[in-house]
Amino acid sequence: MATTVYVLNGPNLNLLGTREPEIYGRATLKDVEALCRDAGQRHGFEIVFHQSNHEGALVDWIQEARRKAAGIVINPAAYTHTSVAILDALLASDLPVIEVHISNVHAREPFRRHSYISPAARAVICGFGVNGYVLAIDGLAAMLASSKG
Amino acid sequence: MATTVYVLNGPNLNLLGTREPEIYGRATLKDVEALCRDAGQRHGFEIVFHQSNHEGALVDWIQEARRKAAGIVINPAAYTHTSVAILDALLASDLPVIEVHISNVHAREPFRRHSYISPAARAVICGFGVNGYVLAIDGLAAMLASSKG
Amino acid sequence: MATTVYVLNGPNLNLLGTREPEIYGRATLKDVEALCRDAGQRHGFEIVFHQSNHEGALVDWIQEARRKAAGIVINPAAYTHTSVAILDALLASDLPVIEVHISNVHAREPFRRHSYISPAARAVICGFGVNGYVLAIDGLAAMLASSKG
Amino acid sequence: MATTVYVLNGPNLNLLGTREPEIYGRATLKDVEALCRDAGQRHGFEIVFHQSNHEGALVDWIQEARRKAAGIVINPAAYTHTSVAILDALLASDLPVIEVHISNVHAREPFRRHSYISPAARAVICGFGVNGYVLAIDGLAAMLASSKG
Amino acid sequence: MATTVYVLNGPNLNLLGTREPEIYGRATLKDVEALCRDAGQRHGFEIVFHQSNHEGALVDWIQEARRKAAGIVINPAAYTHTSVAILDALLASDLPVIEVHISNVHAREPFRRHSYISPAARAVICGFGVNGYVLAIDGLAAMLASSKG
Amino acid sequence: MATTVYVLNGPNLNLLGTREPEIYGRATLKDVEALCRDAGQRHGFEIVFHQSNHEGALVDWIQEARRKAAGIVINPAAYTHTSVAILDALLASDLPVIEVHISNVHAREPFRRHSYISPAARAVICGFGVNGYVLAIDGLAAMLASSKG
Amino acid sequence: MATTVYVLNGPNLNLLGTREPEIYGRATLKDVEALCRDAGQRHGFEIVFHQSNHEGALVDWIQEARRKAAGIVINPAAYTHTSVAILDALLASDLPVIEVHISNVHAREPFRRHSYISPAARAVICGFGVNGYVLAIDGLAAMLASSKG
Amino acid sequence: MATTVYVLNGPNLNLLGTREPEIYGRATLKDVEALCRDAGQRHGFEIVFHQSNHEGALVDWIQEARRKAAGIVINPAAYTHTSVAILDALLASDLPVIEVHISNVHAREPFRRHSYISPAARAVICGFGVNGYVLAIDGLAAMLASSKG
Amino acid sequence: MATTVYVLNGPNLNLLGTREPEIYGRATLKDVEALCRDAGQRHGFEIVFHQSNHEGALVDWIQEARRKAAGIVINPAAYTHTSVAILDALLASDLPVIEVHISNVHAREPFRRHSYISPAARAVICGFGVNGYVLAIDGLAAMLASSKG
Amino acid sequence: MATTVYVLNGPNLNLLGTREPEIYGRATLKDVEALCRDAGQRHGFEIVFHQSNHEGALVDWIQEARRKAAGIVINPAAYTHTSVAILDALLASDLPVIEVHISNVHAREPFRRHSYISPAARAVICGFGVNGYVLAIDGLAAMLASSKG
Amino acid sequence: MATTVYVLNGPNLNLLGTREPEIYGRATLKDVEALCRDAGQRHGFEIVFHQSNHEGALVDWIQEARRKAAGIVINPAAYTHTSVAILDALLASDLPVIEVHISNVHAREPFRRHSYISPAARAVICGFGVNGYVLAIDGLAAMLASSKG
Amino acid sequence: MATTVYVLNGPNLNLLGTREPEIYGRATLKDVEALCRDAGQRHGFEIVFHQSNHEGALVDWIQEARRKAAGIVINPAAYTHTSVAILDALLASDLPVIEVHISNVHAREPFRRHSYISPAARAVICGFGVNGYVLAIDGLAAMLASSKG
Repeated sequence: MATTVYVLNGPNLNLLGTREPEIYGRATLKDVEALCRDAGQRHGFEIVFHQSNHEGALVDWIQEARRKAAGIVINPAAYTHTSVAILDALLASDLPVIEVHISNVHAREPFRRHSYISPAARAVICGFGVNGYVLAIDGLAAMLASSKG
Repeated sequence: MATTVYVLNGPNLNLLGTREPEIYGRATLKDVEALCRDAGQRHGFEIVFHQSNHEGALVDWIQEARRKAAGIVINPAAYTHTSVAILDALLASDLPVIEVHISNVHAREPFRRHSYISPAARAVICGFGVNGYVLAIDGLAAMLASSKG
Repeated sequence: MATTVYVLNGPNLNLLGTREPEIYGRATLKDVEALCRDAGQRHGFEIVFHQSNHEGALVDWIQEARRKAAGIVINPAAYTHTSVAILDALLASDLPVIEVHISNVHAREPFRRHSYISPAARAVICGFGVNGYVLAIDGLAAMLASSKG
Repeated sequence: MATTVYVLNGPNLNLLGTREPEIYGRATLKDVEALCRDAGQRHGFEIVFHQSNHEGALVDWIQEARRKAAGIVINPAAYTHTSVAILDALLASDLPVIEVHISNVHAREPFRRHSYISPAARAVICGFGVNGYVLAIDGLAAMLASSKG
Repeated sequence: MATTVYVLNGPNLNLLGTREPEIYGRATLKDVEALCRDAGQRHGFEIVFHQSNHEGALVDWIQEARRKAAGIVINPAAYTHTSVAILDALLASDLPVIEVHISNVHAREPFRRHSYISPAARAVICGFGVNGYVLAIDGLAAMLASSKG
Repeated sequence: MATTVYVLNGPNLNLLGTREPEIYGRATLKDVEALCRDAGQRHGFEIVFHQSNHEGALVDWIQEARRKAAGIVINPAAYTHTSVAILDALLASDLPVIEVHISNVHAREPFRRHSYISPAARAVICGFGVNGYVLAIDGLAAMLASSKG
Repeated sequence: MATTVYVLNGPNLNLLGTREPEIYGRATLKDVEALCRDAGQRHGFEIVFHQSNHEGALVDWIQEARRKAAGIVINPAAYTHTSVAILDALLASDLPVIEVHISNVHAREPFRRHSYISPAARAVICGFGVNGYVLAIDGLAAMLASSKG
Repeated sequence: MATTVYVLNGPNLNLLGTREPEIYGRATLKDVEALCRDAGQRHGFEIVFHQSNHEGALVDWIQEARRKAAGIVINPAAYTHTSVAILDALLASDLPVIEVHISNVHAREPFRRHSYISPAARAVICGFGVNGYVLAIDGLAAMLASSKG
Repeated sequence: MATTVYVLNGPNLNLLGTREPEIYGRATLKDVEALCRDAGQRHGFEIVFHQSNHEGALVDWIQEARRKAAGIVINPAAYTHTSVAILDALLASDLPVIEVHISNVHAREPFRRHSYISPAARAVICGFGVNGYVLAIDGLAAMLASSKG
Repeated sequence: MATTVYVLNGPNLNLLGTREPEIYGRATLKDVEALCRDAGQRHGFEIVFHQSNHEGALVDWIQEARRKAAGIVINPAAYTHTSVAILDALLASDLPVIEVHISNVHAREPFRRHSYISPAARAVICGFGVNGYVLAIDGLAAMLASSKG
Repeated sequence: MATTVYVLNGPNLNLLGTREPEIYGRATLKDVEALCRDAGQRHGFEIVFHQSNHEGALVDWIQEARRKAAGIVINPAAYTHTSVAILDALLASDLPVIEVHISNVHAREPFRRHSYISPAARAVICGFGVNGYVLAIDGLAAMLASSKG
Repeated sequence: MATTVYVLNGPNLNLLGTREPEIYGRATLKDVEALCRDAGQRHGFEIVFHQSNHEGALVDWIQEARRKAAGIVINPAAYTHTSVAILDALLASDLPVIEVHISNVHAREPFRRHSYISPAARAVICGFGVNGYVLAIDGLAAMLASSKG
């Protein structure tokens, strides 16, 4: 049976490819989903892919992943900086979590340098554009392999 | 006619009993609901019991309580630390509000020591485990009795 | 064809007129909607008017406005102080945004003096009561006229 | 007898139209005065219009307004951020005060986000360019009308 | 043999009932002692009840409780905010400690929101007036019962 | 019957005249007591004069003054900067309180610029050496006279 | 020849007696001048008495006092919190300076607790109403006498 | 026609040579003026030399320089740390500005390390005593030469 | 000709595999070098691999990379938090820089959450153990390919 | 005649050996006293040894030492972080003071890293367990010898 | 075989005896080395003694000590306040570390009160002059003895 | 015999002329050296000119200057903001030190506004480009002349 990996996307990521392309690039969220499914296939992962502008919806999906998935890749977007609820859901999931950001958040406004989410993540990737999702899935695969081995 | 009391629960409390039991104990949210209904019965309260991971849903219920209830017991969980919307809803309700936390938040990460909610609460209870809900209902009953008397 | 303007209202503004009238006045949100439609009519604007207690719903409407409207008037209420998601949605909209507050937030609790939203706004109005919405629409009309001229 | 309104302008506003026009626009202070007199006429206000680079001169005029005027519209410019003396004069005036800024101060350097003056103002407007003065006078007129009514 | 519980009261609590009754209510410390003895009797506790204005005296009693009692209920009053010595004594006692405050300290001056004591407490109750002592003893009884069971 | 005024002195003031005379001068606490009794006599006050190194003792005397005196002159010395207990006792006393410091605390280490006590004081005097006690009693006499008048 | 003492008053003090009398009392600045002249006469001082809303004017007078006076009594009002120029002028004067405030600034807004001026003052008096000027002159007289003796 | 350079001096610099000579040296402001005129002559500059204790006067002169001069040398003294008005005037002038301090402000009280003015200056010199004015004029000459070249 | 990539390692990384293996794993720096050379080979990169405990040596190598390499992968270890010199060298290099950390620095001591280096990095990876180096080289390869394409 | 040295111990040190032995070790305060008397004997010191939970008692003993002793060794325990009164007493004593802590306070909670006492101490020792008292007495002996020599 | 102890000295300590002797005394680093060798001999320690101005060199020696020594005595001098690299090297060494400072750093500039190193030290000694090295070696000897016993 | 002056340059200054020329200009470090030798010759100074990326090397040269030179001109570059070791070396040198920065550091990132070095400098120059070195040597010459005179 295939291992399931949740790829969760926070607010405004549905606008990807149309919003500030000089920061976020021209790939759309559909493109990101395709990249993830390709990467998943390489590692034998079934990818569950979601986006929402609602903090609560993201919490719901993380709780679902807790029962169904082997790992979570999450780009919490704006909720990175404001959501303790997502932090708590991730802590409760007890899954390996990879936090992804498309741009290098460390080179932007000061409030974007603080992440509530990172302490609940096993690893963090930022600044590789949408390719960061692929690296995250690759990295997660290596993690799962090594913890199994 | 029975006095109505709303017992509202914030994000991730639906996981109670399964998440970090060394902090939150083994009772489930169902168990908490039963404890609350028992305590309510002792005081002649009808208990309306809700949980949501959505900040907006909690605001909606508080506004509902404003028209229907004599008091609110709320465990805002993660929204304790980030929600001005819930603070404003509670302030607008003009009801006695009891804030409950299962664990002693003062002995955890520093950001969990700040509550946006407390200034809108008449009283705060933390650290008694799920028994804190019972104490909150008992305390609320005494408050309502004395303000009537 | 009429120019469309979105007028968006954040959490607890549905209680307007009943909640702390000494701060917010006695006009209801229905009254505000009527005032806005009148002001819109004067400038040939079609007004789309919404309120929600859900942060995500406000983000959804801003994204909708991005495709359909010429400008946004927003009273983010409590989310002013806590929502980076709304900030990002407004930044992504690339529309002129007018931020409105009914009371003078600068004369209240310190945390109400910080706005995540203002840097994404072209202009900010506070303290004129519900008349602030009318001034915002008048001001927006002048902005749109001058940028067209 | 006409109602008198003082329109006071702080340091460097005499350079309006020539200084950083990309921020402050091309209208001169003379143009602003004309706009204010027009708006005043619409509401039956006599406009007293002053500018000074001297903090003390602004305090003197506010004290004069206290005896002669029904309201004050003030753009304190740089003194917004440094003058407790102007704050105290406005508090002592007991008049409705509208604070105006031409640009959106919230989107500039951090020290420009702090205003000593705002707590003494009934309302604040910023970011509408010189049209903000007109909106301020309109808003003040509505305030005075409603407090009379 | 009866289980002993220490109920300790910090500075100025001997004035209870006469000092700022709109905050602290009209019950005297004698009344509180009676309430505690009643509550103690319900649970089979012997209550040792003390008040002092001296930080050192409170430390002495906590050290005494360490040898003689099964739990401590403490209202440290002003020492809540300034005493590391009481914190250390409580930590050394290894007893379950319930911290009680008569008013909701979270809704008062900012310095009253910081407690040195809370990290050493198992639970904290505030805002129930003198009834908070009763709830504290009830809650302590449940704690002791469950840790025995 | 003579009006009673308590003059209370905090820790290390018993060393006056021998400790750092370049800061505190050469007068001893005995000399201060004599100065106070002389000043008291001029105004018909009976002076109760105490010094202690114990915070609790100062609280006890303030509580006593509450029942017996018309005003308090207090030099809290080091407890100025650390005692909420003395603040609360003074607040509870409901008496006019004059805070005295021998040296100008504002010109010393930063931590000496913060006083917990001042918000509970009607007036504060510092930097006049031991003559500050005399000015405090003169000032208190004028206060009492004017509130009687 | 008479000793000269400068009594300098900062911004808005010309409104004394009419502005917020519940804080500042009903005496006017004329009354204060009379009180100072009386007190001066008792000690053989010639009083030079000034008020200005202009920071620079206060600096000018302090420089004048430096050549002509034996001491300065100054109520810097709002400039207390914002003027390094007055601080520097006082430091340069090398005269004994007494800082006076009519109300107890320590019991008001936090920014009023910070004084740039105090480190340049020999002594500070606040909270005695206009009587504080008299106490300041008395205290200054004692200082001058003792430094002569 | 000679190039004009404004040399502006802030509050208390008229006392130069008499005030704290161990910090500021023994040269008077007259001497500084002579040094500047000499240095100016070497570079073919006409020197306009002013001092004022009034913030507004300095703003006025900077605005005048804006129309008449090729550069500004300014020692803002105390206004360095408190004046946004001078900052704004310098920004508006669009001239090369050299900020001079006689002493090394970095080695004095912490509040003297913060300069509102420096971000508007092309260059800053401090600690060379009055010779700093000469170096500033030499440096300005080199700047003007190179930008012409 | 092969593209050159510098892989630079900061202080104490020579201890890898022996120091706190529960945080850093059991792979040695030799192993990391082998992993990097393998990954480099896959992308046709020549890997230059260095480690030093000396901040200056790292600056020297970055300057060398500036002339010889197409990109830099750097794990600055402790210098992440303290070195502006490395930041400046990276900024001067004008190369794409990938910052790597073996552990998740965001879940450790607070001072480890601040990176001087990140604003100069195109991308950041942390928490993948030594596999992070491989992901960094993969990510860099994709970056270089897309910027060429 | 023997030189006298006071060894003073703050709150909760009477529990030594029984409280958190993994931090403080198993030696009791009696054992510490014996160690000190042995070390004293080696240097010809008479040791006066005290412990109290009362801040005022410690101040009293320091004042006594001022008249009778050649030096003070003090472990202020919790009062290290909160007592200005002990600081002032030590400053007034004009004796060489050695501050001792049994554990390494720098490796514990942040508030334990701040010491009010250290600026009044000649030397500080922490982390050597109870042996720190011996080193303190040895170090004090060397100090006294060298200042005599 | 003799136990080896490394005694490491940070930047500028090679100037000992010639630099600010009123703070650091007149003993040279040669003298310190001799003192250490004497103390080492008493305990059967071989002393390896180094000084460097280079942070990296200190890290190198700590790594060497890790393989060869039973303990480290380190006076990190200026690197105390800025070096995370030395902290990490000490943490990695897993040796008992004694931090020594010649002067009482707590009584100097505020930035000298913060030590990056102390959390990695078993014990800290400051203020005993060069005798502190001897006490450190004595203390280390006792530590090693007791952990062996 | 010629007076010797050390001109020391911190990290990355060897890249001068090639790195961010819009900030640092096009002159190379060779050019700076030539400018310095020319200026030195005018004043009869022998110039010793060094650059290093190593903090320790700069400390070594400052110690060397201490024995051989009459003054130091230093551009500490990145070490300005992070090196206490250089501060201490300069303090120990007891020489007049001139701190130079090529750009106006006050107009850049906030962390570049803090200098550890300035308190040890007699004077500071920034923003004159490489001409700042010449002004520094001119200024130093005047200082040495006046202290000799």
